[in-house]
Amino acid sequence: MALVVQKFGGTSVGSLDRMRNVAGRALATQALGHQVVIIVSAMSGETNRLLKLAHELAPVPSAREMDALAATGEQVSAALVALAIEAQGGQARSLLGHQVRILTDDAFTKARIKAIDDRRIRETLARGSIAVIAGFQGVDEEGNITTLGRGGSDTTAVAIAAALQADVCEIYTDVDGVYTTDPNVCPSARKIDRISYEEMLELASLGAKVLQLRSVEIAMKYEVPVHVRTSFSDAPGTLVTKEDRSLEEVTVTGVACDKNEAKVQILEVPDRPGVVARLFGALAARHVPVDMIIQNTSYTGALGATDVTFTLSKTDLARVEAELEGLAREVGGQGYRVDSEIAKVSIVGLGMRSHAGVAARMFELLAQENINIQAISTSEIKVSCLIAARYAELAVRVLHDGFGLGAT
Amino acid sequence: MALVVQKFGGTSVGSLDRMRNVAGRALATQALGHQVVIIVSAMSGETNRLLKLAHELAPVPSAREMDALAATGEQVSAALVALAIEAQGGQARSLLGHQVRILTDDAFTKARIKAIDDRRIRETLARGSIAVIAGFQGVDEEGNITTLGRGGSDTTAVAIAAALQADVCEIYTDVDGVYTTDPNVCPSARKIDRISYEEMLELASLGAKVLQLRSVEIAMKYEVPVHVRTSFSDAPGTLVTKEDRSLEEVTVTGVACDKNEAKVQILEVPDRPGVVARLFGALAARHVPVDMIIQNTSYTGALGATDVTFTLSKTDLARVEAELEGLAREVGGQGYRVDSEIAKVSIVGLGMRSHAGVAARMFELLAQENINIQAISTSEIKVSCLIAARYAELAVRVLHDGFGLGAT
Repeated sequence: MALVVQKFGGTSVGSLDRMRNVAGRALATQALGHQVVIIVSAMSGETNRLLKLAHELAPVPSAREMDALAATGEQVSAALVALAIEAQGGQARSLLGHQVRILTDDAFTKARIKAIDDRRIRETLARGSIAVIAGFQGVDEEGNITTLGRGGSDTTAVAIAAALQADVCEIYTDVDGVYTTDPNVCPSARKIDRISYEEMLELASLGAKVLQLRSVEIAMKYEVPVHVRTSFSDAPGTLVTKEDRSLEEVTVTGVACDKNEAKVQILEVPDRPGVVARLFGALAARHVPVDMIIQNTSYTGALGATDVTFTLSKTDLARVEAELEGLAREVGGQGYRVDSEIAKVSIVGLGMRSHAGVAARMFELLAQENINIQAISTSEIKVSCLIAARYAELAVRVLHDGFGLGAT
Repeated sequence: MALVVQKFGGTSVGSLDRMRNVAGRALATQALGHQVVIIVSAMSGETNRLLKLAHELAPVPSAREMDALAATGEQVSAALVALAIEAQGGQARSLLGHQVRILTDDAFTKARIKAIDDRRIRETLARGSIAVIAGFQGVDEEGNITTLGRGGSDTTAVAIAAALQADVCEIYTDVDGVYTTDPNVCPSARKIDRISYEEMLELASLGAKVLQLRSVEIAMKYEVPVHVRTSFSDAPGTLVTKEDRSLEEVTVTGVACDKNEAKVQILEVPDRPGVVARLFGALAARHVPVDMIIQNTSYTGALGATDVTFTLSKTDLARVEAELEGLAREVGGQGYRVDSEIAKVSIVGLGMRSHAGVAARMFELLAQENINIQAISTSEIKVSCLIAARYAELAVRVLHDGFGLGAT
């Protein structure tokens, strides 16, 4: 007997018929002798509908009330899926964030899980019932409802699986697994059968939207095997797991592309110690995470000055753009320049650690297509290049096939 | 400085614009120097929409899941109204049943309030915020979400007002107060300015749908002044309060009419001690509340036998009708007869206790219109007559004007 956690996203519970499918799948798993916990998202479109109402009422709605509002979406799904299971002759119990007690901090709209009480879930399972848990939500020390941010139901699922020491956490979604790159961009993209947490983490943070970043971090920390698969068939998907020998044999596992960032250049900043620290300190104070940073001393510009370039999400840019001019002046710069027409393409693979020359091969492949590289950043298992947005799809295809990912 | 509890029904929060009105009203009350607690229902239509989904999934949905589902309606309203208050520059906090801690029993879909913790509400008020409480919902000892049944938000409001020892509980609705009778039936119906709890209780239980019965019981028990008024204007409505001298001067306060009952006659029951007790004991065992009971010895029928007549709600009749024949035989009767085409008209007034002849005047007024009285029941402050349903409106008008209720 295994303990199986199954998470169903908004599309998988998007209609009453689909909820019946979810119920059928959970019951089929239970019929194999397993204990089953399911985590559900809000019906697709529901969260947006609710947030739209809030924004119509208040241009800057309070985060606490946004969470109380948005959490109803998952509550509705959980109750309805529990009813669907009962209608098929099974036993089920919906459990909300405050009922399980998924304790979070009080950072509304982007709370982090601090602890999960497994008592009520275990009681429910011991009775032979399926526990149907509302994803995305938790409760802070004071009992306020919190939410975990977009894609938060993945995090709920993996965290619950970790708390219960589940045998597997199945993430049901509308794609059938993790791909070597976006199949819409690159027709030769292939489904990956096994991938390490580390690689998945890089792919998730680089814009492959299959799994929420934080859920992968938790899965890695607690070594929860995560199986990403489709709710529309029984085909196996992608197993995200600890690295093993077989994984290391491949140099590059996947190619990711992120068009959600913008590039900012602060012009002619005095080339003195402490200036850059002040600049990024000011951004950090405004809670703006910066991704790539490039400081290139400018020989053609003013003497003793340098341009500081960095990338940040377009959402954050919209929030702070009005302050950039002031910020530039504050650090002695001569203004700023923004480029939103950029893309970050990345190659990811555990094998990079032991294979030399992977980065060089990447630059070569891009150069062959005359794609100019504006910035580079690397980690142990990843190389990212900033390029003009119009070359993004071309770059993905070139890298994907250049590293032999399309071959079977 | 007073503490004011304001309850807004589904129509009053039926759109974002109406929520803005609710916010404006609460803020205006606060601006007068008062502390304000508001209780909100689900947006009109929302509860039915949710329950319909549940019934599509499961013909007999589990009551626990129905409550988890339905409670989201009030949660959405509470969060949105809190946002509307903030958008107008005020401070507000939504509080759900489990957050206030409105403790109920575990009778899902019709739970009763056992205790209310006033700590979080008082903290919210102490901060200068308006507390926006989701009506209709509570939580049982185990943390399961419960609901209080249709109209339950009235009960939430009065119970919260009692717990806080509020100065007044204002019930905002789509009518502008309690009327001497239904204005749709009787054009001369007048709004009542003041009415006693006892009278309101009789009117509420007799089918005047302005206030939920249980909320009036709680208001009476804890002496909470209840002000029933419209959310569409500032006009004062009806104050439901302890009886005082001025209330007693009026003989009859209102005329009510209830068409939701049916009449059952059990025929030729042996006229022996204990028989009637067995009959109504059997109905009580089936949880069927019986309203009027008339035992009239029949001189024209079988010797030593009597017909037993009683009324019950049409809903309950549908539930037990199949058993009536067996029940009649069980007590030695000769079968049964049902009449659903009946109406109960009632006059209610504190003054009846000190004024003789009120009942006689009622019978006289009905007789003048040739309306036959099928049964009569009385209490200290009420006389009810059972008549054929087709005379109901006529009877209401005759009684209303005959007792001078239309005069100003």
